[in-house]
Amino acid sequence: MAKEKKVEQITDMETDFAKWYTDVCTKAELIDYSGVKGLFILRPYGYAIWENIQRELDGMFKETRHENVSMPLLIPESLLQKEKDHVEGFAPECAWVTLGGSEELEERLCIRPTSETLFCDHWSNIVHSWRDLPMLYNQWCSVLRWEKTTRPFLRHREFLWQEGHTLHATAEEAIAETEQQLEVYATVCEDFLAMPVTKGLKTDKEKFAGAERTYTIECMMHDRKALQNGTSHYFGDGFARAFDIQFSDKENKLQYPHQTSWGFTTRTIGGVIMTHGDNSGLVLPPRVAPYQVVVIPVAAHRPGVTEKAAELLASIKAAGIRAKADFSDNSPGWKFAEHEMKGIPLRIEVGPRDIEAGVCVAARRDMSEKITISLDSLTDTIPVLLETIQKDMLAKARENLRAHTYIASSAEETKQIVEEQGGGFIKTMWCGEEGCEEEMKEKAGVSSRCIPFEQETLGEVCAVCGKPAKKMIIWGVAY
Amino acid sequence: MAKEKKVEQITDMETDFAKWYTDVCTKAELIDYSGVKGLFILRPYGYAIWENIQRELDGMFKETRHENVSMPLLIPESLLQKEKDHVEGFAPECAWVTLGGSEELEERLCIRPTSETLFCDHWSNIVHSWRDLPMLYNQWCSVLRWEKTTRPFLRHREFLWQEGHTLHATAEEAIAETEQQLEVYATVCEDFLAMPVTKGLKTDKEKFAGAERTYTIECMMHDRKALQNGTSHYFGDGFARAFDIQFSDKENKLQYPHQTSWGFTTRTIGGVIMTHGDNSGLVLPPRVAPYQVVVIPVAAHRPGVTEKAAELLASIKAAGIRAKADFSDNSPGWKFAEHEMKGIPLRIEVGPRDIEAGVCVAARRDMSEKITISLDSLTDTIPVLLETIQKDMLAKARENLRAHTYIASSAEETKQIVEEQGGGFIKTMWCGEEGCEEEMKEKAGVSSRCIPFEQETLGEVCAVCGKPAKKMIIWGVAY
Repeated sequence: MAKEKKVEQITDMETDFAKWYTDVCTKAELIDYSGVKGLFILRPYGYAIWENIQRELDGMFKETRHENVSMPLLIPESLLQKEKDHVEGFAPECAWVTLGGSEELEERLCIRPTSETLFCDHWSNIVHSWRDLPMLYNQWCSVLRWEKTTRPFLRHREFLWQEGHTLHATAEEAIAETEQQLEVYATVCEDFLAMPVTKGLKTDKEKFAGAERTYTIECMMHDRKALQNGTSHYFGDGFARAFDIQFSDKENKLQYPHQTSWGFTTRTIGGVIMTHGDNSGLVLPPRVAPYQVVVIPVAAHRPGVTEKAAELLASIKAAGIRAKADFSDNSPGWKFAEHEMKGIPLRIEVGPRDIEAGVCVAARRDMSEKITISLDSLTDTIPVLLETIQKDMLAKARENLRAHTYIASSAEETKQIVEEQGGGFIKTMWCGEEGCEEEMKEKAGVSSRCIPFEQETLGEVCAVCGKPAKKMIIWGVAY
Repeated sequence: MAKEKKVEQITDMETDFAKWYTDVCTKAELIDYSGVKGLFILRPYGYAIWENIQRELDGMFKETRHENVSMPLLIPESLLQKEKDHVEGFAPECAWVTLGGSEELEERLCIRPTSETLFCDHWSNIVHSWRDLPMLYNQWCSVLRWEKTTRPFLRHREFLWQEGHTLHATAEEAIAETEQQLEVYATVCEDFLAMPVTKGLKTDKEKFAGAERTYTIECMMHDRKALQNGTSHYFGDGFARAFDIQFSDKENKLQYPHQTSWGFTTRTIGGVIMTHGDNSGLVLPPRVAPYQVVVIPVAAHRPGVTEKAAELLASIKAAGIRAKADFSDNSPGWKFAEHEMKGIPLRIEVGPRDIEAGVCVAARRDMSEKITISLDSLTDTIPVLLETIQKDMLAKARENLRAHTYIASSAEETKQIVEEQGGGFIKTMWCGEEGCEEEMKEKAGVSSRCIPFEQETLGEVCAVCGKPAKKMIIWGVAY
């Protein structure tokens, strides 16, 4: 028999959170590095998580009448330059194709960093009348941004995402769409990924290049840092004017339509890791887990054990649960560690004595609890247990968010909280001026995360300048 | 009321088949041109067809234990050069990234034309033991080949596809995989797309760059030209040696694994158009059609008609049929033409007199037949009718293939058939020499399509050189 593969050790998160994170990414076989910096390989297990997120989001997009399309990979430089703010934001991060075959290109082509310009160019061809609106489009693809520092899932040069792009007859309709899609993201994060979100508006300083408004959902990671997990932008008619998209309204007058875009990326997988993971590896919420259950035969050499495990697996799968079994010749201890590393929500152990007693043992990945379950009721019990795990994981993450949300009334106080906690969401009042955002960053090392929808009146004056406050804002240390 | 949109005319296929084809692509709203030559926009209706093909193929890949992954978009030049035949085949068609942000890159990066080199590079990191094999990977993505001439679906510079890549312990296993995946493609073409296929082996001249064997499925279009619709390659251990991928076998000896790859692209949508389309536009087989049924109210202003049409639509959709209704204020005649252009397999018309009689009228897109159906049995009748349409479309395409398959015994005879028929599949005996392939191309204007699995003995000698024949081969004019 071949020597047993060693169970790989990972760094403790308390020792080095960043190292713990990349250890989980590689040891749970989510990701591998490629020969080009910032371009990562999504291995089958990592991609399966993305496929589950995709299926969930795509279903919700289609329910809200969006249609998928495929736009080109390359944008001519002249097209990218049509909207001034947009090109200023993205040009420094573009990768450029300058040679096609053996020919030098007359105009260089940028690999799409985002596709607003491509959608607008297309719409300028096909939108003529109010009957053509709204345009409710989405595409699943990868985009490329030439970042200096890169990290698995959190900051790739090439990353997978969906980008929704829509066009509407009125500003009201476009704003409603922008807000609706943010709600879709929030629902997927909370209900599917068990990640509580804080919804709000980005400040002008932090909004998307070319947007009038950017909405965001912000999540708190286990290390109390903030992760932006999906954004939704309202553009007004700025792009429409730049690209000369006009439609004749019901009174036959020419109008510029109003536009939105919204994106959700594989970065969220990084968020799942850092929200739920522990020192044994990944912990996956059941709804997104590629395998919700792993069945492990104990003392598999004893007669009937493997057969029983196979039988259980078949009945669990027949009940619509994503499950697998590990029949390899590794020891049960090795298998336990391996599937813990992979974050499989529920482990079912079955050995000779269990079989005799008509039971099996279920071990939850999210806590150390072990439960004995009668084999007769197994396929009824598992779905209930999975839903409990899903709910408990969300509650635990909510508790982390609650426990590390603070109120401050000055930049000094903010700084002190951040230094003590290594992060946290810090609420203060704010005058609305960019200068104060910059000062807060300098003094406390935090950036504005969002102006939350759920406003509170913490005081009358801006925590930075002391002038009259306009809004409550949330600060944090961002990934 | 706004003026009715004009029903757009398309060129007759008998007048100009190429013009008819591009008319259908654009007027059925499958595709639009972008600002970069050869990079096309797949509009919602075109992309929905691709999504249906994807879902079907992806299900079959997963049933045969393949896993999806995501590999990088960019290949460093040095990586592409590792396998000599492969780089010779693809380097002339590569688009090169030479600038990232504002920096000139130290090594230029090619946008993947295909990903063998990326998979091999990854495998060289993760494959160590016979326990790691087989690797059964697939990815859905786009690739880029800098072609000189381009046409919608048939020849894009950027096209969507899936590329399967697998690694096996033995040559036998790898060859079995290569053949199995060709069968998957053949099944999807025949059963799902109603396109009969001819399965066979490519000659050495026509095989994939770096492959030992390339299997192909060839389809005959309505204009009797040939379309290659999916290929499956066996590489031997050539790439494994070039990339130093080795595994220790059960006896602990180091071995090179054997490799395959196989791809299926959006080009097939072009095949569907040219197999089934007619002078009214697209004709879609029900299984792949985004909408299988369109319900059209006739005399919709009369009380109860719109309501009845909406009710029928709801019950048809509830029966699991993909359906929509056209409640626009366009005339029924305009609607008929519009949905014929889109190739919707079945049109259900319902007007005041029909409602009174408790019936509706069903019009098949694939023939001029109209059938009166009782409203009570509608949801039972439609699925049967759709299956009949699917079967009849395959039978019709098979008949086209049968009627335009010929036998020839010389290059002159081949030339004469091609000139008379504008194409056709021409079977001859062949000695196996590349020289005869080239001579046949020169003399008759045809290329070898494949050495079919179903061999016949048509004679003893090669149709070109008269020397002893080894195989029967099929020639044709290719897209």
